[in-house]
Amino acid sequence: MIKVGIYGASGYTGQELIRIISRHPTCELTQVTSRRYAGVKLSDLFPHLRGFTDLAFINADPHQVAETCEVVFLAVPHGVAMSVAGTFLDAGVKVIDLSADFRIRKAEIYEKWYKTHEAKSLLSSSVYGLPELYRNEIRTAKIVANPGCYPTSVILGIAPLLTERWIDPSSIIVDSKSGVSGAGREPVVSSLFCEVGEAFKAYKVGGAHRHIPEIEQELSQLAGEEIKITFTPHLLPVSRGILSTIYTQPVKPVSRESLYDLYKNFYRSEPFIRIYPPGEIPNISAVRGSNFCDIGLVIDGRANRIIVLSAIDNLIKGASGQAVQNMNLMCAIDERAGLQMVPLYP
Amino acid sequence: MIKVGIYGASGYTGQELIRIISRHPTCELTQVTSRRYAGVKLSDLFPHLRGFTDLAFINADPHQVAETCEVVFLAVPHGVAMSVAGTFLDAGVKVIDLSADFRIRKAEIYEKWYKTHEAKSLLSSSVYGLPELYRNEIRTAKIVANPGCYPTSVILGIAPLLTERWIDPSSIIVDSKSGVSGAGREPVVSSLFCEVGEAFKAYKVGGAHRHIPEIEQELSQLAGEEIKITFTPHLLPVSRGILSTIYTQPVKPVSRESLYDLYKNFYRSEPFIRIYPPGEIPNISAVRGSNFCDIGLVIDGRANRIIVLSAIDNLIKGASGQAVQNMNLMCAIDERAGLQMVPLYP
Amino acid sequence: MIKVGIYGASGYTGQELIRIISRHPTCELTQVTSRRYAGVKLSDLFPHLRGFTDLAFINADPHQVAETCEVVFLAVPHGVAMSVAGTFLDAGVKVIDLSADFRIRKAEIYEKWYKTHEAKSLLSSSVYGLPELYRNEIRTAKIVANPGCYPTSVILGIAPLLTERWIDPSSIIVDSKSGVSGAGREPVVSSLFCEVGEAFKAYKVGGAHRHIPEIEQELSQLAGEEIKITFTPHLLPVSRGILSTIYTQPVKPVSRESLYDLYKNFYRSEPFIRIYPPGEIPNISAVRGSNFCDIGLVIDGRANRIIVLSAIDNLIKGASGQAVQNMNLMCAIDERAGLQMVPLYP
Amino acid sequence: MIKVGIYGASGYTGQELIRIISRHPTCELTQVTSRRYAGVKLSDLFPHLRGFTDLAFINADPHQVAETCEVVFLAVPHGVAMSVAGTFLDAGVKVIDLSADFRIRKAEIYEKWYKTHEAKSLLSSSVYGLPELYRNEIRTAKIVANPGCYPTSVILGIAPLLTERWIDPSSIIVDSKSGVSGAGREPVVSSLFCEVGEAFKAYKVGGAHRHIPEIEQELSQLAGEEIKITFTPHLLPVSRGILSTIYTQPVKPVSRESLYDLYKNFYRSEPFIRIYPPGEIPNISAVRGSNFCDIGLVIDGRANRIIVLSAIDNLIKGASGQAVQNMNLMCAIDERAGLQMVPLYP
Repeated sequence: MIKVGIYGASGYTGQELIRIISRHPTCELTQVTSRRYAGVKLSDLFPHLRGFTDLAFINADPHQVAETCEVVFLAVPHGVAMSVAGTFLDAGVKVIDLSADFRIRKAEIYEKWYKTHEAKSLLSSSVYGLPELYRNEIRTAKIVANPGCYPTSVILGIAPLLTERWIDPSSIIVDSKSGVSGAGREPVVSSLFCEVGEAFKAYKVGGAHRHIPEIEQELSQLAGEEIKITFTPHLLPVSRGILSTIYTQPVKPVSRESLYDLYKNFYRSEPFIRIYPPGEIPNISAVRGSNFCDIGLVIDGRANRIIVLSAIDNLIKGASGQAVQNMNLMCAIDERAGLQMVPLYP
Repeated sequence: MIKVGIYGASGYTGQELIRIISRHPTCELTQVTSRRYAGVKLSDLFPHLRGFTDLAFINADPHQVAETCEVVFLAVPHGVAMSVAGTFLDAGVKVIDLSADFRIRKAEIYEKWYKTHEAKSLLSSSVYGLPELYRNEIRTAKIVANPGCYPTSVILGIAPLLTERWIDPSSIIVDSKSGVSGAGREPVVSSLFCEVGEAFKAYKVGGAHRHIPEIEQELSQLAGEEIKITFTPHLLPVSRGILSTIYTQPVKPVSRESLYDLYKNFYRSEPFIRIYPPGEIPNISAVRGSNFCDIGLVIDGRANRIIVLSAIDNLIKGASGQAVQNMNLMCAIDERAGLQMVPLYP
Repeated sequence: MIKVGIYGASGYTGQELIRIISRHPTCELTQVTSRRYAGVKLSDLFPHLRGFTDLAFINADPHQVAETCEVVFLAVPHGVAMSVAGTFLDAGVKVIDLSADFRIRKAEIYEKWYKTHEAKSLLSSSVYGLPELYRNEIRTAKIVANPGCYPTSVILGIAPLLTERWIDPSSIIVDSKSGVSGAGREPVVSSLFCEVGEAFKAYKVGGAHRHIPEIEQELSQLAGEEIKITFTPHLLPVSRGILSTIYTQPVKPVSRESLYDLYKNFYRSEPFIRIYPPGEIPNISAVRGSNFCDIGLVIDGRANRIIVLSAIDNLIKGASGQAVQNMNLMCAIDERAGLQMVPLYP
Repeated sequence: MIKVGIYGASGYTGQELIRIISRHPTCELTQVTSRRYAGVKLSDLFPHLRGFTDLAFINADPHQVAETCEVVFLAVPHGVAMSVAGTFLDAGVKVIDLSADFRIRKAEIYEKWYKTHEAKSLLSSSVYGLPELYRNEIRTAKIVANPGCYPTSVILGIAPLLTERWIDPSSIIVDSKSGVSGAGREPVVSSLFCEVGEAFKAYKVGGAHRHIPEIEQELSQLAGEEIKITFTPHLLPVSRGILSTIYTQPVKPVSRESLYDLYKNFYRSEPFIRIYPPGEIPNISAVRGSNFCDIGLVIDGRANRIIVLSAIDNLIKGASGQAVQNMNLMCAIDERAGLQMVPLYP
């Protein structure tokens, strides 16, 4: 059994990690921390977990946690993750960081969008944890930067087109819509039921969302040139799910069939990517509760555009599921272990 | 009192017409028809109307209805509207058609997207009922084609930019999201609570939605050249509301302030357009239950794009409210009569 | 024009007061206060109000507010209301208090459920603001205690049965379900979209909710004897609406028709009570956005019980609408002024 | 591997059976039938199942299906189930019927609430499939009548109190609230998103719901005397979940602790019952996607009542999960096989 700790587990991604790990065939949860809820039983804060764990949150420091586990998930805000990652690594504990702290390779870009980076020396050894693009690097990584939820949906949605240079890299417009759990479990007015229900809006429009440098870093890497995208996030009145509608301009004539084949081939061995045949379109309700990324492909012949639709569960493939997928790779076990849940519908 | 009939009133737009007219200061409902519910009291089918009307649905033919009213709203499906409009006009009754039958000026385009047109002779005299663009024509029209819900949000959102030629007309991408009432009250699986709740998807992607020719007709008119757009509708898990996120490429440098001024000026006397100052973004929850179109404006300097966000209540400004606005104009009364409701939030 | 102030207007009931008053034919808003949002324009905090008011929140003390208005609504938490009511009354301003501070006639009962009462001397002159029971007293009151949302739905639902002594007063069980806006606009975890959506629970079960003494006070008054009820509130995943399902034991044989007649007669002149005929059942969606209380009546012959179903919009008849109804009575204008909105459906 | 067929699999309970069985360790799906969707791949109708099954719906008669399987689930409407059950039994196939056809032991009661019973001879051998009450009988049954969703939540909620005679059997009032999936996947107006969202109502009030005879049969059996209950179902704006709030009168003084002990003891070996400690209350969101029945217990000392709150996922413990639990028992494998999913929250 792999001994696993969760550092900062009282949010939605934290509880989702607990959920997945409690059914993982070869994993054992040793310690979960929370400053606010120290002493509280997990199943008191999260009654759905009743019967699956007897653990209580502890207010441990990283040194204590490191003594009990081989792998640790950091589910704390950016800024905090960078301050504790080194302690775990020094103790020989593999680190999977769900914050943004190790996703941006260039410290100056991180610092432009976030804050001063206090663990720059770890940046070069951390691996961007998108298994579909970095599987081999993840297998041997000591520290993995788990991708953001929007970036996961966008990068997976567009990687084949950029890699094969089918599109104009300057033409990319991403219109994304996310469920509210993406905003976390913090009590803020903008996440209240009365504010979100029967409502819909965009936010951070016009190049203001912090996931942009992460998306552009990876797309530029794939394209071999620097890319700027337009990215508009929206807030959906649902708990879980991201749908990204991606608009691009092809640089050559493309047929429905060749487009489908491109994606089928690019992702041919991927256990968690489902490419929809021409004419079918993904829905976030078909991935809810699962680690899948569902991708649909449409050609708008009238206006000469390729439209990609990419759907994930933001808490699973967009966060905790992908983190466990990374752990499986780092620990050399079946990449799918603990992640083969069937989506919950309706 | 203006005597008003509603031909086909058992759907969501029909009941919304009844709702608005029952509080209209100078209107009186004479007859409402429904084949399916003939004999049923309006307030039995729609209990929220209890106390506001004693009428029952009748299964009247157009001739009968025409005898009782000066203005008729056609709230029947396309195809049916064209078959009865002439009867009303011949009887001297003003017609406001909420279907698509008289929106497309060229019969061959209508027939490409819909079906054979059986009242072609009426096309030249019908006016596209968007008061912000055609107010004077509406005042004297005998038949008004009430715009579609998506077209209302899109055309109002983009008209100033096209009219003033600030953008490349070939760059327009419209990503729209609509509440479920847009699909009507027909019992179909795709409108069930269990299919729509906690779900989100695009539909008719890639140039397949019937509102495209209507949008393109009006945008081309404004631009003075033929325009093709990319238009992607999505289904939101809300009852009411459309948000359109519109992406365009400016042809010259544009500042936040000049953009705001353009819109403020263009819509300066409009009672139902609210332009948001720079930095503020509309939400469908701020227009619910009202006849407003709220417009937000953003410049994405990084990728050189102008992003327009346009929000309406699809049943009011996108259908029945706009229809009453048209009626007010046609009857030479205050354009705002019956339409000054404050949006319902939360 | 009646000059009106709102003391504490940044919550959901506060904005609903603003909404209603901004369309009230003979009312004018002079000042609205909020400590947290002082200086902020109302329409910046509540964009749906854009165009209806140019006021900004002020951080005024009661003396200042009292100088500008004839009537004041107190929309502050209990405890605060009692500390300012006297100031307004001394200045000759009529007070309508939406908190619980003046609802309980006996200070010792108030203090058992809430806290120390600091304005006991005002209790004897304050009138319980349920117009259907206390219309005449309200007309001449200087201070009105606006009823709680649950109590409004319960008392109106059961008053005829108790008044006419058709039921065993010890048999009353009330199972109520409320939308989330009842919990206010405070950012707390339990009101987050992710906690409330696709969820449903009871809370304060077993005689713990503070609305119980208020309900029992009024029911005991009607019955002429002391009554204890079982009251179980539940949290619905909707923004607005309360449905109370009330179970009672009849003390004599009752027919559907006689039951219906009892209610029709009891409420025969009431503008905001709608009694449903036998076989029809209210839905909160039929009262949303209106000041109605809809009541349905069922006899369970198998188990010899009378079941009453009572639906209101908790923010309107359950709070701000009823408060305006009280103001209309206190100011001797048409009781229905500003309150004749048609419910918003769907 | 146990070979399993599903007769009538195109509804929500049908797909939930497919979902569960596709992850069941020792089960194999052989044939699934649907008249309407014959020829359609399961994953085309239910895209969330993509990758889990290659089966297509077939329009098979019972004889054909019987040839391929050892166990069959009947997920067809009542009336249809009774017409095919015999064929499966004659072929030696174990039958688990999710309809109401074999739940009521006395044909005359069935016929009073439903229709003429055409397979009366099977009634005596069929077992009511509530494992917590009939585990041993289920193990050897050839045909199991899977309980209704409401009855499961109610009977499990009240069984200990009746069995131990702590309450007055004539005092039982059940106020139940169900998600919309309980109404099935039929396209009817009353299940539309616009009708259910932001809405809430009771239905079949006053002893009219067909689950009443089923509940009363089992409660009477437990109590040893004939019981009549008041049962009021309500429609919640959620997809999944039932919460039953059950009111009873104790016949002797009861403490919180003794009440908790009664339930803990009664269900002490049950894998799918979770009894909440005093002061904690179940929420349907804590059982969603799982086979649990969560039970909370409250004493209303003021009014001398015991209140039981019982929460299930209506599609799992209330239908397909319980059906698989029954299959596990009938096939002598681990009762929990395939059913140990952690609830999905949020």
